[in-house]
Amino acid sequence: MTGCGHGHASWGPADQIGAANLLTPELRLAALRLVTQGHAYDLSHVTGADAPFMAPNQTPFLLSLWATWRDTIRRRRRHGFTNDAGSNVERLEMTAHTGTHIDALGHFSIGDRLYNGLSAADVVTDRGLDRLGIEHVPPIITRGLLLDVAGLDGGAFLEPGRVVTPDDLACAAGDSVISPGDVVLIRTGWGRFFAADNTRYLAGEPGIDVPAARWLTRQGVVAIGCDNMAVEVLPNPDPTQSLPVHQHALAEAGVHLIENLALEELARDRVTRFCLILLAPKLRGATGAPVRPVALI
Amino acid sequence: MTGCGHGHASWGPADQIGAANLLTPELRLAALRLVTQGHAYDLSHVTGADAPFMAPNQTPFLLSLWATWRDTIRRRRRHGFTNDAGSNVERLEMTAHTGTHIDALGHFSIGDRLYNGLSAADVVTDRGLDRLGIEHVPPIITRGLLLDVAGLDGGAFLEPGRVVTPDDLACAAGDSVISPGDVVLIRTGWGRFFAADNTRYLAGEPGIDVPAARWLTRQGVVAIGCDNMAVEVLPNPDPTQSLPVHQHALAEAGVHLIENLALEELARDRVTRFCLILLAPKLRGATGAPVRPVALI
Amino acid sequence: MTGCGHGHASWGPADQIGAANLLTPELRLAALRLVTQGHAYDLSHVTGADAPFMAPNQTPFLLSLWATWRDTIRRRRRHGFTNDAGSNVERLEMTAHTGTHIDALGHFSIGDRLYNGLSAADVVTDRGLDRLGIEHVPPIITRGLLLDVAGLDGGAFLEPGRVVTPDDLACAAGDSVISPGDVVLIRTGWGRFFAADNTRYLAGEPGIDVPAARWLTRQGVVAIGCDNMAVEVLPNPDPTQSLPVHQHALAEAGVHLIENLALEELARDRVTRFCLILLAPKLRGATGAPVRPVALI
Amino acid sequence: MTGCGHGHASWGPADQIGAANLLTPELRLAALRLVTQGHAYDLSHVTGADAPFMAPNQTPFLLSLWATWRDTIRRRRRHGFTNDAGSNVERLEMTAHTGTHIDALGHFSIGDRLYNGLSAADVVTDRGLDRLGIEHVPPIITRGLLLDVAGLDGGAFLEPGRVVTPDDLACAAGDSVISPGDVVLIRTGWGRFFAADNTRYLAGEPGIDVPAARWLTRQGVVAIGCDNMAVEVLPNPDPTQSLPVHQHALAEAGVHLIENLALEELARDRVTRFCLILLAPKLRGATGAPVRPVALI
Repeated sequence: MTGCGHGHASWGPADQIGAANLLTPELRLAALRLVTQGHAYDLSHVTGADAPFMAPNQTPFLLSLWATWRDTIRRRRRHGFTNDAGSNVERLEMTAHTGTHIDALGHFSIGDRLYNGLSAADVVTDRGLDRLGIEHVPPIITRGLLLDVAGLDGGAFLEPGRVVTPDDLACAAGDSVISPGDVVLIRTGWGRFFAADNTRYLAGEPGIDVPAARWLTRQGVVAIGCDNMAVEVLPNPDPTQSLPVHQHALAEAGVHLIENLALEELARDRVTRFCLILLAPKLRGATGAPVRPVALI
Repeated sequence: MTGCGHGHASWGPADQIGAANLLTPELRLAALRLVTQGHAYDLSHVTGADAPFMAPNQTPFLLSLWATWRDTIRRRRRHGFTNDAGSNVERLEMTAHTGTHIDALGHFSIGDRLYNGLSAADVVTDRGLDRLGIEHVPPIITRGLLLDVAGLDGGAFLEPGRVVTPDDLACAAGDSVISPGDVVLIRTGWGRFFAADNTRYLAGEPGIDVPAARWLTRQGVVAIGCDNMAVEVLPNPDPTQSLPVHQHALAEAGVHLIENLALEELARDRVTRFCLILLAPKLRGATGAPVRPVALI
Repeated sequence: MTGCGHGHASWGPADQIGAANLLTPELRLAALRLVTQGHAYDLSHVTGADAPFMAPNQTPFLLSLWATWRDTIRRRRRHGFTNDAGSNVERLEMTAHTGTHIDALGHFSIGDRLYNGLSAADVVTDRGLDRLGIEHVPPIITRGLLLDVAGLDGGAFLEPGRVVTPDDLACAAGDSVISPGDVVLIRTGWGRFFAADNTRYLAGEPGIDVPAARWLTRQGVVAIGCDNMAVEVLPNPDPTQSLPVHQHALAEAGVHLIENLALEELARDRVTRFCLILLAPKLRGATGAPVRPVALI
Repeated sequence: MTGCGHGHASWGPADQIGAANLLTPELRLAALRLVTQGHAYDLSHVTGADAPFMAPNQTPFLLSLWATWRDTIRRRRRHGFTNDAGSNVERLEMTAHTGTHIDALGHFSIGDRLYNGLSAADVVTDRGLDRLGIEHVPPIITRGLLLDVAGLDGGAFLEPGRVVTPDDLACAAGDSVISPGDVVLIRTGWGRFFAADNTRYLAGEPGIDVPAARWLTRQGVVAIGCDNMAVEVLPNPDPTQSLPVHQHALAEAGVHLIENLALEELARDRVTRFCLILLAPKLRGATGAPVRPVALI
């Protein structure tokens, strides 16, 4: 591996997982050794009809009933079964990008260019991503670091449009040295508005800009997570730029983004180093997946 | 806790998680201590349009394109952005019960009765399960055991309708003693037909019947997984019974079921004891969730 | 037929179509004879992502791409076809109740009671309405009358909460005598806000209350349509009543409701009598259907 | 209008409706004058979960429950309403191309070229067809002709792969002279297998090939309908051609296709000339729509 974090993929022309190549058995073992209490922090929100989403690209989560106990029991009786087994099953109409989720590398492009120089015209098919889809993301079991910047301006959370800078992150990191293979979670305090005040949650958000993203990817992080919907500051201070952190992280650096995280409990307990486990369901071709990351201590 | 595995929930009237109450920090630590190599086996299939599903209760997984790079770039240019950020986003129409997934306790009833004596008429609402939904399943990080019965009849897999008995399981367990809090994964060899020969995969399956299920729940397992679509033998040898293992495990014992697992690699490497991690996305009210369980060694 | 319009269905215990029983070949011929110019007014809005819907029972219309020309051409080339046939196909996630639509009789109940004394517990199944679904609505080809009440308060439209009374309707009818088998369309002017100002469109609406509904059903109308989302006044002046016109029309009188109509052109041209044609797609078990009614003159 | 039916659109560069330009008030009046009995034949099948569809481009029709009377009554009671209004509402996951439907002109391309020389790359957007979508199809009220070829081979229906030729159509037309503005419905007898034997229905079908399609479009038909899923013969006798009739009719001639029609009653009553009414719901950007065409006599 060379050049990781310089915006040039360096794991060969066939690579589809980017910085996740840094996830080695050694790092996995080292991360697991951080666990001394056996406590698992759940870093996800519940995703329901009240989950915020930013139109037009994010879309609603809809659950409707497909099969219910009454009807399934009736039907099975008609088929001669006597044990009154009732099934409850729903149809989900959803997107991977509403609720707590991870972005696949193929979620964002710079023009036609996806991660590792792949052409979006080739990769994006009617059945989703032919490469760089969420099914290629390996299990993420590595060291996680919480960089808590929520109080930097003296309040309980940062304001929308507030850029979190490399200095802010360095300050929040304190003694923690970011190492290749780490996942960095950034707490802005914005998560308190998830499903509680969606209008506010969606009107903008504090977050990192490209310099902070580069500062992180240069250090070899595998993923960047945040307690907001886009990881990055919205609106971008440069009015000509739309979601440039997504472009840098996903399409240039091969670094995954984890969005809509629930980080309040970690912060409350001042947990800053932990074993981060994130297991994305392998939905073929999807540009992301709902996940339930945990922080083990 | 008393009476676990006797078919009587015993964690109080408010309990919604059943045998998952057995998951303690101590067991979590003990399971993590099993990990010496840092290797993660992925126990899930990729879920796509080719995933088998058993009509009428199981339904297809459909992915269609909601936003693509070309259009999103065009739109952003019209809004004055110059960085050509292309987004790829899909809509998913799916169910939790197609592909590798875990069943929520509220997925099955015995007549009107759900787990812990709850009434299905109360719990099943238009927005899904008001209680016992998948969002209540805690992170599962515990010891996993592989009981490999695939070769019991001398072939590479068992045949449909072949009942896996308590004796078969005991035999497959060998020296491994099942302990409260364990997750037991049963390999029948049937998984080879997943998405490879769906007609065969769905026409029936080898699996446990109620006696074997009771044998497992009595020992305090938290979940039972299998490399078939229903864990249990299909068709049931008793033609009056439809899915009685689902009823016993979910509605009586509060033990989760994990279906459509990919267990070939574990078997190939003769891995029988491991740290099992399964993190179900918290989709509110859903009767299950797509998951990506891993076995760590 | 006896008792039509008195809130008692009277077409026998097996009846599923209510007042549509009044649609006879004679009335159809009479309606067609009204057509002298051969001009067709389109009474429907375009339904897209911008269509208003009232949560929680109305839900969004979502169109995503399932198959597109590029991919289908590629695939067909791989199969040896040389004529470069490109297919474009979408998936629609929708409800019958967003956009211009007609309600099926089974859409509303009074407690457990549906139209013709049917029990909702019997009729509402996992696959929708077992009876009274939209597939039972016959083709509606009959005389239509426009009752234009939009200007009654001196403006271009009535305000939300404004009850349209029997007297208002009688006044708007002028010389037109409502006859059994007619469809009455009421113009409040509210339609101007459809997809133009959805917040306003959904915050309330002018419309009929139960007395006006009864005045209409008593005269044997087959359906009542309006240029708002619910036909009836919202909020109801009686704060204990939710959608009582739906209950009366659908569950008592067997009279269909047609919602979100586009009536501006009819009004502009002062067309008050016409041949109304409405052909609901037969979607099995659905509680309504998107339609494109036309007024022929 | 010049050149209609020669495969060159001739209604100007902005035209989106093709041969439907031929629909004039005069033709509408003439068609309505054909109605002497006031009887309406319903030409559509019921579309439900049992509707046949040809993977991969055709996809299933799924109806699940969004709101039901029990829950809506409960919720309204909590809001202080006392009239126990129960609502039943479904979510529909569907495509326009399953069940009885009409194809929009933008449904098919020849390479990048859509009807009227439009480029598919321009027209096909994330929200469907920007032009040539189903919302542009005008109400179709015109003369319909039934060409019944079902018995041509001596049986009750033609066999799959049987090409219906111009001579066959001319023979079936008998005295009827096809005129500009007509809709021609072809009965092959294949409709009997719709939802009754889907495997057979989908394994191939009798239908027209390009010569017969050209014979029809040259005479100025506005739409061609059939009692099969694709109007055209499947498989095409030329193994290098995939769906060439779709290309000719939609992309060259601007002539709509109507599929999965129910024509048995028309044939039984030997109705060959009628007033055809087809009103496609205006679903923005959709490549087709479920319809319920009727034949009036």
